[in-house]
Amino acid sequence: MARRNEQMRLGAFLYPSGHHIAAWRHPEAKADAGIDFRHYAALAQAAEAAKFDLVFLADGVGTRGDDVEFLSRTAHSYQAQFEPITLLSALAAVTERIGLVGTASTSFNEPYHIARKFASLDHLSGGRAGWNLVTSSSEHEARNFNRVRHFSHEERYQRAEEFADVVSGLWDSWEDDAFLRDKASGRYYEPARRHVLGHRGRHFSVQGPLNVARPPQGQPVVVQAGSSEPGKELAARRGEVVFTAQQTLEDAVAFYADLKGRLAGHGRRPEDLKILPGVFPVVGHSEAEAREKFEQLQALIDPVVGLALVSALTGADLSAYPLDGPIPELPPTNGSKSRQGLMLDLARRENLTIRQLYQRVAGARGHWQLVGTPAQIADALEERFQAYGADGFNVMAPVLPGGLTDFIELVLPELRRRGLFRTDYSGTTLREHLGLRRPPHPAARRRADAADAA
Amino acid sequence: MARRNEQMRLGAFLYPSGHHIAAWRHPEAKADAGIDFRHYAALAQAAEAAKFDLVFLADGVGTRGDDVEFLSRTAHSYQAQFEPITLLSALAAVTERIGLVGTASTSFNEPYHIARKFASLDHLSGGRAGWNLVTSSSEHEARNFNRVRHFSHEERYQRAEEFADVVSGLWDSWEDDAFLRDKASGRYYEPARRHVLGHRGRHFSVQGPLNVARPPQGQPVVVQAGSSEPGKELAARRGEVVFTAQQTLEDAVAFYADLKGRLAGHGRRPEDLKILPGVFPVVGHSEAEAREKFEQLQALIDPVVGLALVSALTGADLSAYPLDGPIPELPPTNGSKSRQGLMLDLARRENLTIRQLYQRVAGARGHWQLVGTPAQIADALEERFQAYGADGFNVMAPVLPGGLTDFIELVLPELRRRGLFRTDYSGTTLREHLGLRRPPHPAARRRADAADAA
Repeated sequence: MARRNEQMRLGAFLYPSGHHIAAWRHPEAKADAGIDFRHYAALAQAAEAAKFDLVFLADGVGTRGDDVEFLSRTAHSYQAQFEPITLLSALAAVTERIGLVGTASTSFNEPYHIARKFASLDHLSGGRAGWNLVTSSSEHEARNFNRVRHFSHEERYQRAEEFADVVSGLWDSWEDDAFLRDKASGRYYEPARRHVLGHRGRHFSVQGPLNVARPPQGQPVVVQAGSSEPGKELAARRGEVVFTAQQTLEDAVAFYADLKGRLAGHGRRPEDLKILPGVFPVVGHSEAEAREKFEQLQALIDPVVGLALVSALTGADLSAYPLDGPIPELPPTNGSKSRQGLMLDLARRENLTIRQLYQRVAGARGHWQLVGTPAQIADALEERFQAYGADGFNVMAPVLPGGLTDFIELVLPELRRRGLFRTDYSGTTLREHLGLRRPPHPAARRRADAADAA
Repeated sequence: MARRNEQMRLGAFLYPSGHHIAAWRHPEAKADAGIDFRHYAALAQAAEAAKFDLVFLADGVGTRGDDVEFLSRTAHSYQAQFEPITLLSALAAVTERIGLVGTASTSFNEPYHIARKFASLDHLSGGRAGWNLVTSSSEHEARNFNRVRHFSHEERYQRAEEFADVVSGLWDSWEDDAFLRDKASGRYYEPARRHVLGHRGRHFSVQGPLNVARPPQGQPVVVQAGSSEPGKELAARRGEVVFTAQQTLEDAVAFYADLKGRLAGHGRRPEDLKILPGVFPVVGHSEAEAREKFEQLQALIDPVVGLALVSALTGADLSAYPLDGPIPELPPTNGSKSRQGLMLDLARRENLTIRQLYQRVAGARGHWQLVGTPAQIADALEERFQAYGADGFNVMAPVLPGGLTDFIELVLPELRRRGLFRTDYSGTTLREHLGLRRPPHPAARRRADAADAA
């Protein structure tokens, strides 16, 4: 297969002390990183100096889970950290080029608020905003928003589709050249360049116009992460970046081909959507050093946390069994049978103890884990990129800032030697970094088409 | 009456090009100020260097009005500017001491989102956040949020009361010392210091806990601006700063006494709430220079804009009558009769033309207007402060940055000579600037009370 005639795109997925479940206990971690703005500012500035495309923030509108004994032993589960839109806005003021992507759920928000905040962030940052459009599946989040029971999966996606349409329509409330601001004539804007949405749908009625001028990027970049069938359809219609998780090259290539293949059906080109799987890299100067780093983290997993995660995945309470003994025979679960099966197959196949099983699944929480030298990690990334399993990667450092520093200092030079990653930015907006075209305003496009036809 | 044994508190009320309705047309104004972050950063930094207590941002969740001919000639009416929470978050990163107060409506928001964003802003800024709690009265805003008709006034305030209770309860989800972050024991927080709200009310069901640690200020400062009866009751119960508009000393003193008198009924002390009326100052080295500055702005009011504002206030279309002729006899309005009466009384008493009437009411849009020398303006502010008509002022510069610079360079030195305003900050949080106590966590207070009783 010929080498691809383009470079990787890289995101720095920020998570308070790091992505490893026990990161906050690492000797070098800042345990209060989730509310330390200087920590995040330094990370974003380091990622920008290294020419990453974007920083990425996940979100949950509520703590995930009820088991306080477990929750009180983890810095994960969205318990006590900055809210992403406020944090990204502050980061906009201390960075100049890097993209700023934040997660906001369509399940418990109003499209007017979301359109407005990301448009405002795009103006604040000079065209660097991205919205990671998700649906919320957790009952714990629903209960913070007047709902005792959650939306069904189907209803969530129907709402998300309509939500995304309304947000996109609101971003086009004003044409790019609507604001004349002509002091002499007193004309602040051109009335014909203002568009009232007037949306009346099943879930939303939104009049508009949005009270923010058209964003510098035309529309902030829409990121999407669903991998269910409706999730992939939404991504094919609206997504411009897809954040995903695949363990094997085969799965990654299949997912890539599937998703890119859906674009034509929506009048889009393959290059209009970039697929960036997550990668959890543990880098060492030698393979032994990398393994040692990883084992140091693994040993920090609190058994209460590890057991709670394995119990959640297998649907069974394992706390009564010896940690260093085998997985017991389990009754069938009420939850996801396929997930329980995967866990148990893994444990039986490799003859894992309970502790070994939770160490296997808890650390990187299901993401693609690479433990090795810079060359080994660059090999794996290159292979997946060249095989069209990815257009780039969302880098999930095990510990922050150390894991990001390692990736920047050790892996990026190796990728650059191979011509796989930029040495400087060529544009100023997130769209330009990602090689995504700036969407023309629909009315301006219609006028241009009419002029061409005449 | 003895001189007050305290100093004024001052807010800098930022509005894109300035508060005068024609500010954007002023030769020195930045007409695109509403989406220029450097403009806002410079204003906030100037206000901070001058030791203002806070910057203040108003908000509307939608354009106010339908008359596009009018709207297209004004930079007001919340048409195309930054959203306040994103803007304040960005300003947090470029300032260190000044308070950051933003408006967010209780009518079209969820309390979990509002509690979370202001808590996050309080962490980002090291304890400088304030929430201006408003209800929305505009049908134009309602139509952006699935509502064809607006809530009634009574329903709006009932919702606001419950909303404020939920937000306050969520801010107390964690005690100040809940997060142990003890790497050795693996204990991230102390379960007994986590409090689940479990609110079930008429308008909201919100489980909690909030997924942000207790804010540095305990609770961000709550600002309120309603002057209706339910508005004043809400302020007396929950408000810590009240932003208000009174034209005369007599009205200001009466409002102040009324509001402060309501506090005891809610177990609060007079000093727990600060009353900061708006003031629109036009400062000149001489009175003639001040008048000239003001007339320059007045002459920039577009007749379309002036007529639309007067028509809105009188409930009558005056566009068919000569601008420099008298106000015609008008049929009774369907809108506010008292407001129409006030307008017409004013016009008849002073024999005003239509142009003179709109110039009178449009410029400062009903706020207390002071046109004069630094000494004259300081005299008026001092008089109102010493007479207990205000605890300070929210300064509404006619043009920005010029009007704020004038106030800082000309009026502040005069206030400082009289001992009426600080020369430096003595604290680091907005509460400390305002002389408001930090609220203890209710559970911590109960434990302390129990210990005292034992």
